[in-house]
Formats: sequence, structure tokens, C-alpha cells
Amino acid sequence: MKPAYIAPEGSGNEMHSLIRDLFPICRSITGEGFRESLRRIAEVVPIALSDVATGTHVFDWTVPKEWNIRDAWIADSTGRRVVDFRNSNLHVVSYSVPVRARMSLAELKPRLHTLPDQPNVIPYRTSYYAEDWGFCLSDLALQALPDGEYEVCIDSTLAPGNLTYGECVLPGATTDEVLISVHSCHPSLANDNLSGMAVGAFLARHLALQQRKHTFRFLFIPGTIGSITWLAGHEAEARSIRHGLVLSCLGDGGQPTYKRSRRGTALVDRAAAHVLRLAGAHALLDFVPYGYDERQYCSPGFDLPVGCLTRTPNGRYPEYHTSDDNLDFVKAESLEDSLTKVLAIIEVLEHDRAYINLSPMCEPQLGRRGLYRNTGGTTPKDYEMCLLWVLNMSDGRHSLLDIAELAAMPFAIVRQAADALREASLLGAFDRDPSNRARGASSSLTEPSRTSLSSRRLNR
Amino acid sequence: MKPAYIAPEGSGNEMHSLIRDLFPICRSITGEGFRESLRRIAEVVPIALSDVATGTHVFDWTVPKEWNIRDAWIADSTGRRVVDFRNSNLHVVSYSVPVRARMSLAELKPRLHTLPDQPNVIPYRTSYYAEDWGFCLSDLALQALPDGEYEVCIDSTLAPGNLTYGECVLPGATTDEVLISVHSCHPSLANDNLSGMAVGAFLARHLALQQRKHTFRFLFIPGTIGSITWLAGHEAEARSIRHGLVLSCLGDGGQPTYKRSRRGTALVDRAAAHVLRLAGAHALLDFVPYGYDERQYCSPGFDLPVGCLTRTPNGRYPEYHTSDDNLDFVKAESLEDSLTKVLAIIEVLEHDRAYINLSPMCEPQLGRRGLYRNTGGTTPKDYEMCLLWVLNMSDGRHSLLDIAELAAMPFAIVRQAADALREASLLGAFDRDPSNRARGASSSLTEPSRTSLSSRRLNR
Amino acid sequence: MKPAYIAPEGSGNEMHSLIRDLFPICRSITGEGFRESLRRIAEVVPIALSDVATGTHVFDWTVPKEWNIRDAWIADSTGRRVVDFRNSNLHVVSYSVPVRARMSLAELKPRLHTLPDQPNVIPYRTSYYAEDWGFCLSDLALQALPDGEYEVCIDSTLAPGNLTYGECVLPGATTDEVLISVHSCHPSLANDNLSGMAVGAFLARHLALQQRKHTFRFLFIPGTIGSITWLAGHEAEARSIRHGLVLSCLGDGGQPTYKRSRRGTALVDRAAAHVLRLAGAHALLDFVPYGYDERQYCSPGFDLPVGCLTRTPNGRYPEYHTSDDNLDFVKAESLEDSLTKVLAIIEVLEHDRAYINLSPMCEPQLGRRGLYRNTGGTTPKDYEMCLLWVLNMSDGRHSLLDIAELAAMPFAIVRQAADALREASLLGAFDRDPSNRARGASSSLTEPSRTSLSSRRLNR
Repeated sequence: MKPAYIAPEGSGNEMHSLIRDLFPICRSITGEGFRESLRRIAEVVPIALSDVATGTHVFDWTVPKEWNIRDAWIADSTGRRVVDFRNSNLHVVSYSVPVRARMSLAELKPRLHTLPDQPNVIPYRTSYYAEDWGFCLSDLALQALPDGEYEVCIDSTLAPGNLTYGECVLPGATTDEVLISVHSCHPSLANDNLSGMAVGAFLARHLALQQRKHTFRFLFIPGTIGSITWLAGHEAEARSIRHGLVLSCLGDGGQPTYKRSRRGTALVDRAAAHVLRLAGAHALLDFVPYGYDERQYCSPGFDLPVGCLTRTPNGRYPEYHTSDDNLDFVKAESLEDSLTKVLAIIEVLEHDRAYINLSPMCEPQLGRRGLYRNTGGTTPKDYEMCLLWVLNMSDGRHSLLDIAELAAMPFAIVRQAADALREASLLGAFDRDPSNRARGASSSLTEPSRTSLSSRRLNR
Repeated sequence: MKPAYIAPEGSGNEMHSLIRDLFPICRSITGEGFRESLRRIAEVVPIALSDVATGTHVFDWTVPKEWNIRDAWIADSTGRRVVDFRNSNLHVVSYSVPVRARMSLAELKPRLHTLPDQPNVIPYRTSYYAEDWGFCLSDLALQALPDGEYEVCIDSTLAPGNLTYGECVLPGATTDEVLISVHSCHPSLANDNLSGMAVGAFLARHLALQQRKHTFRFLFIPGTIGSITWLAGHEAEARSIRHGLVLSCLGDGGQPTYKRSRRGTALVDRAAAHVLRLAGAHALLDFVPYGYDERQYCSPGFDLPVGCLTRTPNGRYPEYHTSDDNLDFVKAESLEDSLTKVLAIIEVLEHDRAYINLSPMCEPQLGRRGLYRNTGGTTPKDYEMCLLWVLNMSDGRHSLLDIAELAAMPFAIVRQAADALREASLLGAFDRDPSNRARGASSSLTEPSRTSLSSRRLNR
Repeated sequence: MKPAYIAPEGSGNEMHSLIRDLFPICRSITGEGFRESLRRIAEVVPIALSDVATGTHVFDWTVPKEWNIRDAWIADSTGRRVVDFRNSNLHVVSYSVPVRARMSLAELKPRLHTLPDQPNVIPYRTSYYAEDWGFCLSDLALQALPDGEYEVCIDSTLAPGNLTYGECVLPGATTDEVLISVHSCHPSLANDNLSGMAVGAFLARHLALQQRKHTFRFLFIPGTIGSITWLAGHEAEARSIRHGLVLSCLGDGGQPTYKRSRRGTALVDRAAAHVLRLAGAHALLDFVPYGYDERQYCSPGFDLPVGCLTRTPNGRYPEYHTSDDNLDFVKAESLEDSLTKVLAIIEVLEHDRAYINLSPMCEPQLGRRGLYRNTGGTTPKDYEMCLLWVLNMSDGRHSLLDIAELAAMPFAIVRQAADALREASLLGAFDRDPSNRARGASSSLTEPSRTSLSSRRLNR
């Protein structure tokens, strides 16, 4: 059987290939481009599309009109297109209302967005909730425009329609859910967030082949309004979310970065910290109420244990939200490494649990069970140390992740040691699982058991 | 209206001028000099003087006799005054009993206090509770004294009388009190503690013009015996003290320093740390049972939440308790900056409270309320971030100070964001105020609300 | 009277002399050499020897056969002994079964243990629980062996007999016990663990002359199987162990090192950290389930508050478990310093307790009791500061160790200050001792008393 929690070989290239397919499509928070993108993802893993009609009230928001666009340009007095949507869909401010007009450069300029500090790149701008229109272009291109009359055209429609989102649910042994949320509404930006969409799709395809304790729910949604819409329609389902990850910006060459959930010490927060710490250079960030859809999942009325995994976070790389976030900027190796990191986190979510040492009075004799070297006087190997850690700490108060953290050893090895000790009947199930602690159910568990366990044995 | 929590322009110069007036007066823990000083302060802000008679038992202590002095000198055989009280009131050990005698230099020397390591300065010495007499002079002056006979005179009285203290109470909307305590018993020492007396007086004058939630009580007292005497006579009032500051050494050029109360995490401790952290170079010290009157307020039988604000703390600058702590040593800018710091701390004490986000399911749409920029794709401004912080954390568990600390933003801006959100009906009152936590009333509040809030909403 | 908690003068040399006597004896986990060593220690302090028969079940283990050895050698074809037990008892793998055979060097080599990285030294190896035989020699000696036939002889017996351990119990005023455990089963290794045996023996001799609050139990046992055997036979006694130390590797020139108990915050953990912190260079290590007999005392079924004091810890010095761990490697000064450290830790265990300030409203007037200087204006001496600390923190919530840590002053001085304040009737007994906290009995004590103490006074 293939390893359950390692990215399949070659998946980096497959993900990059998917990103190349999706890159040219003009996505926004609604419209055909978004749906076309989901249909392409559905070729990787089956996803169901849902439509929510314009005007639907979702908490404090209203589902906006559907936006579609065919063409857009600015032409000079000779009719030459000096800005052309066909070259880059970033050229149009997303959700621009239709326009056809002639105007002087001076009149046009307030509508033109550039980045003077990065004169070569086209910025990405939107105006979802205030009806408006505009163009984005490089500052160099703007400076090159001579004064004079220009013709502008935005051939778009903004009309009642639907907000669409994609959903893929992989049932598990329990109805406890892991949420994987991916915003899928950005146009030609490879890292933000085609990389997240690709890693999400291949993660789903991979997990679909594994045994699962949790039910996994994948959401491919427009940012902000998508998560708000889904949450508004699924308050009951949201109650089943035990752990969650927002995936974004997973293809650049930067170090993996995990931003904690609002709770800060949820199991997913600890799992991600554990995985990243043992994997080399990384960053761990505390929750801030800005970023991606974790803003909604972690709003105080939900307060779900949902963190965000990226490589370089949003806003911290110069290519962010510009035309430089292109196909060269994302790398197959980074994508594959990101998938491996997500799977390692999921291994913890799926398998963290507490055991009880069934031979807790002194150490059991591992040597006669073939679990320990016979020649004394030397120092134990890592795996032997791991067996000792699991035995010593399996008192019902420490889960495998707790032990991995105490021992500074990978969760996978601690889990393997626990399996070996279970097989040797030295470890038994513990019915109250301390990994529940992150869900606030721990207070009854932690305090008394520390001493009671040992006193119970000593008192018998 | 003038800003409530910023030192009025020019107040630094006004405070320095008050210090200049007070400097020549010979103060001690009792006597006319102390009363004269209070009458001068009463020209800035009305204070009531109270007398407690010699011999009154105050806890483990007894109010001492009243000390007054007219003149004191050491004259050489020619009758020339070689040490003269008229030049500096530091020359006499405070509370010296009257003496008139002739004696050799050898007999006199044990009565002469100098600082050999700082040969130019006169030290400040006292002998309040053991009847004694002595002189202080520079070590250079001592070395210059030829052998021979000297005449010494201390024209003082030590007799039954009163201990006097000054009090200024500014009533607030509640009877919860903020205590501002200033020891006022040192003679010609500008920083310790004329600076504290000046800042205290101008603080009272300024707060008298503001709306106040708390009742503010200012005490101008002799050190140690003054706070003991006040506490012994006001055990009931002491029970109403919710926050307190001892003010001292606020005019030197050093960085602001806050010494925590014995509790260590009282609101005043957190408020002072917040204010100083955001204001640049500063120091935060843990409580030690030595220093100024916080020793009494923080004795275990009271354990009041009273910290101590200084610039360079007592004993840590060479001018401390010497004639070099003079009018040049204290600066108008430092005094004004100190007043600004105290006011910023008081702003937190007055306005820290918790709110409830009234739209806690996902983020409310700030844009349509004019509270958020309309063009997406850019990063939010500080004030927008602040609105998001207040919304996300207003769950009844986090006060505005908690949020300011999480967001690493000034309390004043967080408070402004909360006011805007209240006006937009997005924030509501929370009846159980977590700023009470420092008073030990929090245990019932913190734990359950973390999850119950969200579950309550999800369960409805 | 001699000071109770300082190593007696000359004890370093006496301990080194004991180590010299014990060094040549061939010890193992059972056998005559172990018993002979205990008899030699019994000349320093009376210890009782107990025998447990081969085959006795002790938890998951079985007491092994008794091993004794008279001689062992490898001879070349000329009959010359090229490896000779008479030169070093490390030459034989401990617990080697008897053998007499001729074999080629190639056949012999798998039986020969060397350390190629340290070619001059003989390693120490054992095979207690898998019947086997072998020799240890320097790698240089191995390389010098020519090919050819060799005769090997191990004149040992492995037969039913006894496991022996030594015990010395010094009764105290209470039946609460302090356990001092010393593994005594290593052959000619001076630091590991003749140093521990010597410090343990002289510690017992010294404490036998002191008043004791605790009952002290000293165990001289074979490693692992010894502590398991003792625990299996003394579950009830184990329940009385309040604090414990494993002593080992106490003679080398390295800095003192304390490894915490599994609990991590037991009083012995805090006492050792306090003593080492104030004594200069040192190391504090968290518990790991490997090392010496603390592995058994800290197994989850017992979870006893037993730490381990060493200088350089096991496995962290190149001489460890080799012939270089010899009489030159251990120093009288180190041994005496180690004894002093253990005694300082024991001073805390014996005398830590909480008091109640009987004059808690403000400071009591120390000056009139002769406990404070009379001339004011100067800064207090360390001892005066210590009096203030004890008074301020003696609220029933802080023990003397807590205060020593807050004040960063030696426990001995804090204890002296408390004694002086007791004599002055300023301090009274507190019946609920917070040093119990490490035993888990604290939850009822800590929280409520913080405020109730002061409010009780204020409310009266």
C-alpha cells in the first residue's frame, strides 16, 4: 500500500500542470470563469457545485449580482489598444460595470491603477461592493501614454444570477469534520490562489484513497462572501468541524508558514507547529483578524479551530496581487512540499490519541520482547527512546502529540512506537481522549488525573 | 473641548515653576515646612489638610513628635559658620534634636555625614525614630576643616504636635477609587519628590475638569508614616481603591519606569505596561517590598493594586538623596512627558471595558457603513485593522486593553474604533466587565464563555 | 554545634579515599563483589543488607541468577594472556556465562568490544538479560592481535542465588520520607558510580547526626533491577516518599547538573534549581525517561518526585563507561562540593514552609525592635531586604522557598530572617503548608487566599 501521509511522487508536476490550465481563466467572486475553473478541478476530484441566488441574505451580507466579462480595452486616438484585457485579465478592475466612452487622459487617470514602486507590473484590484469601473496597468505603460483622447470599453455584465461554490465531502468513520477551505476567485494569479486550489484538489484526490477517521469537507469558494454564504447556510454542519485549514499561497519558494486559529491552541494549531518545527525553516504566526477566509471561520460567533497554511503569507512578497504572481513564480517542488506538510498535519489530526500504559509500575522489560538492545552500557537508539517516552507518558493525560512534543520526535515515529507497544499488549486504549482538550472539553480530564493515576495504583 | 488625556501645553513649565517655589522650604515628615508646602500646592488645586496628633497609634507605629527648625550651624573657633543651614536645609540630619555645644573636631566627626565617593555633594540623612542629631556636608568641606574646637547649634524643636497630610478627592460617577499618592516630606530635593508633588498637583487640576468614571483621591503625605497613618484611619475607604499610583522622581531625563504592584497583573500594572511599551524606551520592574509608599499599600493585609511610576527609580541615579538633586536636574519636558504618561494610564483605567459584537456570525459588512475602503486587493489601514480586532475579540472575554495588547495598537485608537462600532450598532454593552479580573472576580467569567458564546449561537 | 547543611571539612578527601578502596572490586548487579562493596560502605554508616532470591517476580521482571567471577583471560598460542581480567575487571562483559575454548581470531572477534574512536580505552559492557559472553579491550590492543589461535577462559558462575541491596533508614520527626538512591553495581568506574556511593554514604553519616523532620531512606542498589525489586516489595513505603534524589557521577570536574523529576515542579525540583542557580555555573535538565533509577521511580504508576543530581551527566563525558573513568578522574573538591549541594537541597526540603505575617497591615516598625538601621536616606542592606520580603510575602500563599526565589536570595538567609521575625513575634505558623503543592494538594489553597486574606482584614 502506498504511504498514506506523504505526497505522491510526481504530484508537484501534476499540480503545476493544473495551475497552467487554470491560469488564463478570468475568475471573480461570481460568474462563468469561476464555474469553468471548478469544472476543471472536478476532473481531478469529484466536486459538487451549488448556486446561491443574487440577493440572498447571508448574515450581514447580501449575495451580489453575477459578473461576467467578454472584453475590455483602452484605445488611443488611432484606435490602437493601449490596454487590452486579452493580454491579461488583471487589466480590468474586477466587477467593473460596463462602460463605453471617450475621454481625455486627464479624465481617465483617476480610473487607472498602477504601482509606482513596481513600475513594470500590473496590480490586481477589485470593487465588488461599490459599483465602479477601472483599469490596472503598469506604471511604465501609464507614463508612456500621451495626452489626448482615449476610447474605453468594458464589455461586462453585472446582473442577477448566482454565487457558485464547489464542495467535496469524503465521509469518514465519524461525522467529526476536517474543513479544507480554498478561495478560488482570483483571476490570473498563480500563487494566490491557484496554488491553494491545486494543493486542495490533489489533497482530496489522495485522501479519497485512504481510510479516514474524520469526514473531510473541501470548499472551493469565492473569498469572504463565499465562506460567509456557506456558513450562513450550514450552521449545523459548522458545528461538526473539529479542525480546519485554509490553504493559500503554497507554490512560492518561501518557507512554510502557519497562522494559528483564533483559539491559538487548537489541535490543528499544535499539529501544524509540530510538523513545521521538525521540518526546518518555517514561521508560526498568531491569529490576526485579517487574511483569508479564516476571518469568517474564526469570527467570534463561530470561533472554529481553523488555521491558515501558506508559504510566504499574503502581502509579504512583492509579486503578491500583481502580474508577477505568474506561472514562473510557483514551483512544482514547493507545491509537492506543501502537500506533504498538509498531509503530515492531517496525520496528527487523524491519529492523535491517548493510551494507557498497561504495565505502569516501573518500566516493562522490553528486551525480552525484542523491543530493546541486549548489550548494556551503550546509549539507546532514537526508536528505543521513543518507546520509553510513550510508556512513561501514557497515563491518559498525554496524547501522542504531547509525547512527540516532549520527546522532540516526529509524530509518525511516536505513532509507530505506540503501535508496536500496543501489539506487545503494553499499551491500551484510553477512552477519554486528551486531544479533545482543544475543543474545551478538557477541564475535567487534566487536573485530577495527574496524581490520581499514580495514587490509585499505590493505594490498591 | 480640550483633549482629556494629554498633558496641557505649557504644563511642563508650570510644574517646573511650582518646583522652584517649593524647593527652598525645609520639609520633613511633620512640621511647618510640610504645611507651608501643602498650602502652596493648594493654590494649584484645592486640597484639604488633616492633622493627626503626636502619640496616635497607627497599626504597629506611633505618630511621632512634630519637628520644627529655625537655624543650625557649625562655627569654627573664629565664629565663622563652616556649615550653615541657611545655605542648604540638607545640612541638618532631619529630625535632629536641639543641641548647643562646643566640641573638638574628633568629637564632632561621628556626627558628620559625607559621601566620600561623591566629594562635592551634601547627602540627605534622617533620624526620625531614634532621637539623635547630626550634620551633612560635602566630603571636600569635611576634609578642609582644621582640627580644633567647634561650636555647634541646632535650633530645632521636637515636641507634641501633629502629623499633617493633604487630600484632594474628585468624585466620579462611581465610588470606585483611583489613588494617587505622593510623598511630600523631603526637603530641598527637586526630583525626589518635588517632581511627584508637581505632577500630582497638575494631574488633579486637569482631571478636575474632566468627566470621571472613578473617584480620584490624591494624597500628599509624609513618606511611610503618612501612608500608614492614612491607611490606619481609612480602612473602609481603602476597600474602594481599585487602582493606584505612587508618583515620584518624575522630572529627571531618564526613561519612564513602572514598578508593578504586589499583584503584578492588576489593571494598573497592565495599563502602565501598555502605555510605556508603545511609547519607546522604558523599564518595567517587578514589585519589591522596598521603595516608596507602595510598601504600605501593598503590605499583605491590604494588597492594594498600587504601582509606582518614576523616571529613573530611587537609588539608581547618583544625584539621588544629595544636593545634586536640584532645580537643574529636573526638566520641564520630562515633567510634561510624565504627566502625559500618567494621563494615558488613567485613560485605560477609566475606559477599559468589554463589549459584545452584535454581529458575531462572520464579519459584518463594514464597507456599506462607510467604515472600510471600497477598492479591494490592497492591504487595510491601521484603523481598519483596529475595527477588525475589536469586532473579532469583542466576545465578552476581551476588554479593550486586551484587544490593544493583542493588536499592539494604542488603547486610544482601539477605544476610538469601539466608539465608531458602537455608533454603527455593531457593538453592545457587556455587563460583566473583564477589567474586574484584576480584582479577582474573574474566575466565573473566563473559562465557560470561550466556547459557550459560539455554541450558543450555533445551537439556536 | 557544627553547621547542619554544609559538607564537613575534609569530607572530600575521606570520600576519595573510600572510592580508592572500592575501585578494584568487581561489582555487578548481583554477586559477592556487590556485597563486599556494601560491607565496606557499612564501615562509614550502618546499612542493612537484604537478599531477594533469583526467580522472584518483580512487576514485569524476574530477579536474575547470581553472577560471580574468579578469573578471565584470552591467551595467544604461546599461552601469554593478551587480555587479563586481573588487570581490569572491565575486560569481561558483565554477566558473561562461563566459557573455555580455543578459536581463531576471526571467530573470536564478534565477542570483542572496543571503541575505535577512543582507541586507548577499554569500554564497559554488560549482557544481564540475554545469556552471552564477551571481552572488552582497547582498540589498539585489538589491532595488535596477530591472526591465529587463541584460548579464552571466563571462570564465572551464573546460578540461582540472590539479588542484594543495602538500606539505611534515618528516622525523622515525621514518617514523610526523603529517598536517596545510589546505583552501586558498576565495576571499576570511579565517577559512575563510586562517586555517588561515596557521597551517599557520607551524606547518611552526616545527616545521622542532625535533627531531622523527614525520615531519610538511603538505597544502595543494583541499577534498574534493584530499584524495580525494591519498589515491588515496598509499594506502601513508596507512598511515603515526598522527595527524592538519585545520586551519580558526582566526582568529575564538570558543573553540577540537576535533572528534574517527571513532575517537573516538585519541591525537590524547585529546591535543586534554587540551590544551583545561586551557586554559579550549572545545568538544569527536564525529565527524560532514560538515565538512572529515576526511570523507575518516575514510571507513571509511581510518578514519585525523584530527580537526579550529577555533575557531568551520563553519556556526556568521553570517560563515561570506559577505563578512563578512573581514580584520577574524580576529585576530592568535586565530591565535597557535590555533598554541599545535596545538603543545601536537603535544607530546603527540611525547612521550607509558609508563615503568616502577624502584623500584616502596613510594615511593622522594625527599627524599634533592633531589626533595622536607624539612619534614613540610605539603602537597606541585604538582610534588611530579606526581612521585608519575608514580611511582605508571608500571607500563607508563599513558602520560604517561594520568597527566596522572588528575592533571589539564598534560602538559608531567608530562613534566618524568618527565624528572627518569629522570635520578634511578627511571624506565626501557617498550618496549611504550600510546600505541599508539589504533591497536588494545592488547588484548594492557592486561588481563594490571594484576595480573601486582604479582604478578611479589610472587612473586619
